[in-house]
Amino acid sequence: MRIVEVRERTASIAAPITNAFIDFTGMTCSVVAVITDVVRGGKPVIGYGFSSNGRYSAGGLLRERFLPRLRAARPESLLDDAGANLDPFRIWATLMANEKPGGHGERSTAVGTVDMAVWDALAKVEDKPLYRVLAERFGKGEPDARVWVYAAGGYYHPGKDLRALQDEMKSYRDRGYRVVKMKIGGASRVAPGARLRRDERAKQESLAEDLRRVEAVLAVVGDGKCLCVDANGRFDLDTATAYAKALQPFGLFWYEEAGDPLDFALQAELRRRYDGPMATGENLFSMADARNLVRFGGLNPERDFLQFDCALSYGLVEYLRTLEMLAAHGWSSRRVVPHGGHQMSLAIAAGLHLGGNESYPDVFRPFCGFADGIAVEDGYVRLPDAPGIGFETKRELYAVMKELAS
Amino acid sequence: MRIVEVRERTASIAAPITNAFIDFTGMTCSVVAVITDVVRGGKPVIGYGFSSNGRYSAGGLLRERFLPRLRAARPESLLDDAGANLDPFRIWATLMANEKPGGHGERSTAVGTVDMAVWDALAKVEDKPLYRVLAERFGKGEPDARVWVYAAGGYYHPGKDLRALQDEMKSYRDRGYRVVKMKIGGASRVAPGARLRRDERAKQESLAEDLRRVEAVLAVVGDGKCLCVDANGRFDLDTATAYAKALQPFGLFWYEEAGDPLDFALQAELRRRYDGPMATGENLFSMADARNLVRFGGLNPERDFLQFDCALSYGLVEYLRTLEMLAAHGWSSRRVVPHGGHQMSLAIAAGLHLGGNESYPDVFRPFCGFADGIAVEDGYVRLPDAPGIGFETKRELYAVMKELAS
Repeated sequence: MRIVEVRERTASIAAPITNAFIDFTGMTCSVVAVITDVVRGGKPVIGYGFSSNGRYSAGGLLRERFLPRLRAARPESLLDDAGANLDPFRIWATLMANEKPGGHGERSTAVGTVDMAVWDALAKVEDKPLYRVLAERFGKGEPDARVWVYAAGGYYHPGKDLRALQDEMKSYRDRGYRVVKMKIGGASRVAPGARLRRDERAKQESLAEDLRRVEAVLAVVGDGKCLCVDANGRFDLDTATAYAKALQPFGLFWYEEAGDPLDFALQAELRRRYDGPMATGENLFSMADARNLVRFGGLNPERDFLQFDCALSYGLVEYLRTLEMLAAHGWSSRRVVPHGGHQMSLAIAAGLHLGGNESYPDVFRPFCGFADGIAVEDGYVRLPDAPGIGFETKRELYAVMKELAS
Repeated sequence: MRIVEVRERTASIAAPITNAFIDFTGMTCSVVAVITDVVRGGKPVIGYGFSSNGRYSAGGLLRERFLPRLRAARPESLLDDAGANLDPFRIWATLMANEKPGGHGERSTAVGTVDMAVWDALAKVEDKPLYRVLAERFGKGEPDARVWVYAAGGYYHPGKDLRALQDEMKSYRDRGYRVVKMKIGGASRVAPGARLRRDERAKQESLAEDLRRVEAVLAVVGDGKCLCVDANGRFDLDTATAYAKALQPFGLFWYEEAGDPLDFALQAELRRRYDGPMATGENLFSMADARNLVRFGGLNPERDFLQFDCALSYGLVEYLRTLEMLAAHGWSSRRVVPHGGHQMSLAIAAGLHLGGNESYPDVFRPFCGFADGIAVEDGYVRLPDAPGIGFETKRELYAVMKELAS
């Protein structure tokens, strides 16, 4: 077999929403197709990948830096020893040849997008769902039959009042989710890099408004154990602490990304000041960064959650290194609940026994969400039987992807 | 005044050399021109910037993500309160609007390139060299009249023997440099991401070969105090330690980037095992990453060196935050000797009283190197009197830049 061609294009995932740090109105997404000469069901096997959300414009890096290395490689150098299937590790090494160590961002998205397409193709060549391939290859025995998911929403939106927030959360619960997530900290949103607003009154007003929002959602979901809050890295230690004290009595499911994702000292200090589960990691894009969080962030492997997103972080090849590092530091894979709400992380969650997966019921369409016709039940989702990652089971997404194949 | 237009293009800086991690044959460089409506000497003021070396293909990020934000901004929002000159901090905040925190790489190069052009334009509007503007604005009084530089070379090159290495180093000394730098660790070079070669014999042979190379260079420069060695992040702790023990007796100027730049625990442990100056930081691209190095890397502010490169790290606006953070942690700006060998860092070094600057006498042309006609004397270089960063005083570089203005 061989890779015949690798194609990429840019698609829109624009959404009229904001979190505490950014709005999403201009956001795009790279889509990659790895076209092989293997035929299954009368058609060539094509693997697809896309670049999650939060970082974008990876197209230039793909076209000018990463894809040329794949195209220049001897086709057989990208295969396993038997020459029967793609070797994601060899492909990864080819993509990363001549890359300097350190400074992980953006290129990690470009590589993660290609890596996703490679695993999709690999599983299709094996004619199995990826989650099954992963469970077999990496010694997990049976994949999980269903994966815990939570509904990520509660974004800020012009004109969105408490009632609209409650309606949104009711809608998630009606669709089978048990745990929901909402944004906090957005009322004090200023441009990143601007000198932080030191106005104490503005901070207090932001906290008071968020507490009204949290209480409104709790009135819908009933119990703090059904609610996560997410500050998107917005807070300094004082603000994070003020929120921690105010949130403490609610007994929330988790308190996510309070401070800058690289401020491990803040995270460690906040961990001492807050007595409930915390979550972070979606903006750390390599094993080396994840290791620093684990080494220096003071997190508790019995209680906290890690949210690394393979699509933003050099793909599953690097994610396997991260999971290995976590195990060496005493972290169970069940503490890992990836960011991104995409089918790739869902397959990894089932195949490698993670703790669950994010889900965006209403945003980042068509890239986020799971197979058509498989409903969320009691907070869990099942996976389709289709070969590969399962993109073909999601009609709206597959329509975008297959354009690349024509 | 206003910004009339921002242009960008990609230029080549390909060089037939390798270090322990990468080769440079396919490397490119983004060039940006910020064109204003201010006239000085009968011509519009144009600021130029470029993207240093080591990371590249920032063009897509510039075109699709960062420059559109500048173009969409109200022109007056990018100026100082008086409307008389550009405000680099407001421009930076505009560039970084809607960027998520964390994961610093690649986008940091795109922003650093624009930031460089902004400072060049700003100083030209003031009709002063940038180093003088910086010394005045940031309370340094007089800029340094000359900046310490060292000659970075000693790359691996097919067919390059010890004699050729010695000739190269003699040539640097003949051109006025006192301290030279050479690469180590390249003999054991494997593709990054490949499972690390655990073959002890290969490691020992690499060390033995590097020791022959080091001794050959010492025969030219006479004293270990005139030689730096740079492993480009290649070593695990055992290898780094074996090199440390073997290098110890030479009393080198510094031992640079032994392990992965984000492996702060390795750096801290190696610091305990090696009794000479160390240097690192060129692959950390933000204040937050630099802070983690300072917090967790075990470096000694009386003896070690930090090598952050503003062009790869969101520009001077972020660099000022890094210098402020360093001061708060007890580090003098004199311990900072930036990577990159470009005129922007040279201007910052003189204006903000850094410890020196890297210099590549023979590679990365035309982007690296300093003003034509100003020779290095006894290890120091003076700066030109030209307004701005001084690109116009470097004929070969300015020829590439001014194409953007036509």
